[in-house]
Amino acid sequence: MDCKPIGTVHTPFETTGEAPKQGIHEAATGVVELDPAYRAGLDGFDGDRVVVVWWADRADRSVLTLDRDESRGVFTSRSPARPNPICVTTCGVDEVDTDAGRLYVRGVDMADDSPVLDLKVPVDVRTDL
Amino acid sequence: MDCKPIGTVHTPFETTGEAPKQGIHEAATGVVELDPAYRAGLDGFDGDRVVVVWWADRADRSVLTLDRDESRGVFTSRSPARPNPICVTTCGVDEVDTDAGRLYVRGVDMADDSPVLDLKVPVDVRTDL
Repeated sequence: MDCKPIGTVHTPFETTGEAPKQGIHEAATGVVELDPAYRAGLDGFDGDRVVVVWWADRADRSVLTLDRDESRGVFTSRSPARPNPICVTTCGVDEVDTDAGRLYVRGVDMADDSPVLDLKVPVDVRTDL
Repeated sequence: MDCKPIGTVHTPFETTGEAPKQGIHEAATGVVELDPAYRAGLDGFDGDRVVVVWWADRADRSVLTLDRDESRGVFTSRSPARPNPICVTTCGVDEVDTDAGRLYVRGVDMADDSPVLDLKVPVDVRTDL
């Protein structure tokens, strides 16, 4: 399955090690910047939260058990190190610039310049989709 | 970015059209079956919920706006039809068979036999990861 990045997320965290474990506990802000080809996908966005699906491009994909406890598998965690390093972070939305394809968000936990694969509304936002 | 399926999810929904929009509103049960190479990743799993990251392999990847409202982009929805058809469903866990690599789950909304890309614990489960 070939995933194409739809954009990039800019955050204050230069490395994976600097990034917090879960953005939801943090106030750090960042910007999701969509590539021009995908900007139309943001039209009409008016939610106050967004689910950012991103790719932990610096993560070790070979691990199946946790470093700190080898009796536990990676699927019992949210560590980015996993066979498919797809991470899911729900962020608050401060501002949307649909023309520029930019979402200004709060609660980021991505390393700077991580590729973004998808944006969604949270499941608890009532939609008919 | 090349994603490798870690397994498959079996559900009562033969087609995408039969699958509910959001599993969280449904009681349908299913089984996540991991491929043998990834079963160790499930060791020690004891949560009562799991985030299933799956690939909507029958979805149209070319759409950027919603069928029912062309003024709204796909990133304002959770429709499986999107550039990277990565879907995220939080399911209840009824039973775990780590030896067989099987998770028996509730609240499924995947079409039967959809490829599974990842399993995680929900973010509100307190972990130190």
